[in-house]
Amino acid sequence: MFTAEIITIGDEILIGQIVDTNSAWMAAQLNMAGVKINRITSISDKEKDITKALQSAEKYSDMVLITGGLGPTNDDITKQTLAKYFNSRKMLVHQPSMDFIEARFAMRGLAVSELNRQQAEIPDNCTVIPNRHGTAPGMWFEKNHTIVVAMPGVPDEMKKMLPDVINRLKQRVSLPDIVHKTMLTYGISESALAEKIDAWEQALPNEISLAYLPNIETGVKLRLSTAIHNGNEIIAQLFENLANILGNSVYGYEPDTLESVVGKLLRRRKASIATAESCTGGKIAHRITSISGSSEYFRGSVVAYSNEVKTNILGVNPSDIEKYGAVSSKIALQMAKGVRKALNADFAVSTTGIAGPAGGSSDKPVGMCWFGVSTPQETITFAKQFGMDREGNIASAAAVALNAIRLQLTEF
Amino acid sequence: MFTAEIITIGDEILIGQIVDTNSAWMAAQLNMAGVKINRITSISDKEKDITKALQSAEKYSDMVLITGGLGPTNDDITKQTLAKYFNSRKMLVHQPSMDFIEARFAMRGLAVSELNRQQAEIPDNCTVIPNRHGTAPGMWFEKNHTIVVAMPGVPDEMKKMLPDVINRLKQRVSLPDIVHKTMLTYGISESALAEKIDAWEQALPNEISLAYLPNIETGVKLRLSTAIHNGNEIIAQLFENLANILGNSVYGYEPDTLESVVGKLLRRRKASIATAESCTGGKIAHRITSISGSSEYFRGSVVAYSNEVKTNILGVNPSDIEKYGAVSSKIALQMAKGVRKALNADFAVSTTGIAGPAGGSSDKPVGMCWFGVSTPQETITFAKQFGMDREGNIASAAAVALNAIRLQLTEF
Repeated sequence: MFTAEIITIGDEILIGQIVDTNSAWMAAQLNMAGVKINRITSISDKEKDITKALQSAEKYSDMVLITGGLGPTNDDITKQTLAKYFNSRKMLVHQPSMDFIEARFAMRGLAVSELNRQQAEIPDNCTVIPNRHGTAPGMWFEKNHTIVVAMPGVPDEMKKMLPDVINRLKQRVSLPDIVHKTMLTYGISESALAEKIDAWEQALPNEISLAYLPNIETGVKLRLSTAIHNGNEIIAQLFENLANILGNSVYGYEPDTLESVVGKLLRRRKASIATAESCTGGKIAHRITSISGSSEYFRGSVVAYSNEVKTNILGVNPSDIEKYGAVSSKIALQMAKGVRKALNADFAVSTTGIAGPAGGSSDKPVGMCWFGVSTPQETITFAKQFGMDREGNIASAAAVALNAIRLQLTEF
Repeated sequence: MFTAEIITIGDEILIGQIVDTNSAWMAAQLNMAGVKINRITSISDKEKDITKALQSAEKYSDMVLITGGLGPTNDDITKQTLAKYFNSRKMLVHQPSMDFIEARFAMRGLAVSELNRQQAEIPDNCTVIPNRHGTAPGMWFEKNHTIVVAMPGVPDEMKKMLPDVINRLKQRVSLPDIVHKTMLTYGISESALAEKIDAWEQALPNEISLAYLPNIETGVKLRLSTAIHNGNEIIAQLFENLANILGNSVYGYEPDTLESVVGKLLRRRKASIATAESCTGGKIAHRITSISGSSEYFRGSVVAYSNEVKTNILGVNPSDIEKYGAVSSKIALQMAKGVRKALNADFAVSTTGIAGPAGGSSDKPVGMCWFGVSTPQETITFAKQFGMDREGNIASAAAVALNAIRLQLTEF
């Protein structure tokens, strides 16, 4: 299989000032093109480190993609280092790049500096990958069957350049068709999932690989990947079998999300929804409204942090709060029913719990949450106990609430 | 200088499914502790690759920090690989980890599976770094003066574990005493800030470094770092001068946040707050309630996504919606006043805007948002235009709303 490595050059990543989002984007594009990424490395703007990284990458991969260090300032040394590494004899002015730079500066009424002119100079033994969105051209080197491509680190410039790189690559080598598909599950832990699907997993063909990807907000994702012929059909069949094992724990396939699936189910039923949130503090509403077009089915939410709001706006019975406490089945039920009525929605979900770290007690510990789900037919309640910090408890409760609504909507 | 490398293990990064945010966070923390990061590498869940990466890292760095591959499933092989690499003789049950796992499962009413039990087993020649937020303990190995630490890849678990790792490191090696302090600003862009503080920045002593850290949710942070004697006092004085230049754009110092500062100001005034959110969809409420103890001043929120909720719950005049549109000064004003009254709060903030990508028009483009701030004395409104995607527009509007409330509360 054709393999590649990504090398990101720049101190700002190593001091944690910026997150390297370029590499994930490049990796996704290259994977889809049938290139396997062996390694992603971030190093500093030092000649020694760049050379070392190149030597190591060349040993293990067919291609090396470098981003960063092509700017006009003194700390940008990628081009000089590559020229040395590939024994270039001299630098040549790449006229189309120079024309682009001059036109760009003229448009802004600025003079072209010597540093900017130098950006149009490239080593004599590389092929230029044009940069239509910036001043630093990309460079394609080949030596001993290894391809080394250098691109700017500016995400927008790199993203416009990579398709040209992939096209050029496809003309040089034959690439397989790698297929990935990711199933989404909620409500079953990674280990319980592994036990439940053990037989299915053991029976997977060798050419198909499985990955578990757990996440508080999305549940456990299961990804199948393969490069074999008819991969799409084979994976579809495998997932169909798996869906039968997992039943309603499966809520979709990427790029679905719990909130997008809830939205689809509501649209299909031409139904609306509202939320009444105490401990989740608006997080459920925030997730629902992250979907464009959610105003078609989302009526709104009452974040009822104080008991007075629970009673005045949602119609919760104050003596029940007194008697059972705000974190109770009774109150979750009245909140869900109340918000359905107050906001004139078909469905509603409610949360009342102890996000922590303060406010817990022995019978109602931190992380405990009661949920209510109200439909035109009935209102149900249930409790969960999350053992996380405040942020984790809130995120988990919001995900459980979305999933509970999904299950109700699926049942109809 | 003491150097370290970060190795991230997991195919999901190499196929571009997730962005590696852990490494940047770890790099920032380690830098602040006086550790220089030489390299960040992402590799797959393969024994050969892990071993190769360890060998290479050991050659060039004093410490190696590994994340990922400690889950309970078959594709998680980091622990076994490390045991082999460090010639561990056997695996031992780490009883505190086992107790934690059993307690956690018991709390949820679940049985502990064999796979989960195995998570509490660790190689006999490593020191355990406890995981208080998950089932996979961290491991600290030492060999030939190289320290290798393995942590889970789940960000929340890793983030709670790294401080313990840094503390342990400080006991073993002498690290320079680097002092960092970060000033928080909101409402002024990075470039405007740079112009405004140019003279102050030029006059900074050589031993003091300044970093600009812009972020949609927090505004631009300014971090001063130094290793010189009396660093704390010198930085405090420099920031005092800077605060005079920047006035009320400064809202605090890390670990403050806009929502924590709003909370402090409300507590000081013994006042309460409510939010009425249309386009922000609960994001402001979510940020306010991320602060433990916010129930003391946060009454709640009405997320009024439908016009009916705006009129029925918040008392917005339906004919004004007809006349001016829901995204208007008039409606923002009525929403803020309305939620203050309906939720019986002292202060309120409202948002009504077009998060996008759909729903824009020439006079009300995507990214436009009207804000209302209501106090016991008055209600003001203003508009902003954000040129981002849906997520960015929502996050920006929520931050502007929190900052507007902060400015109102500061004025009193």
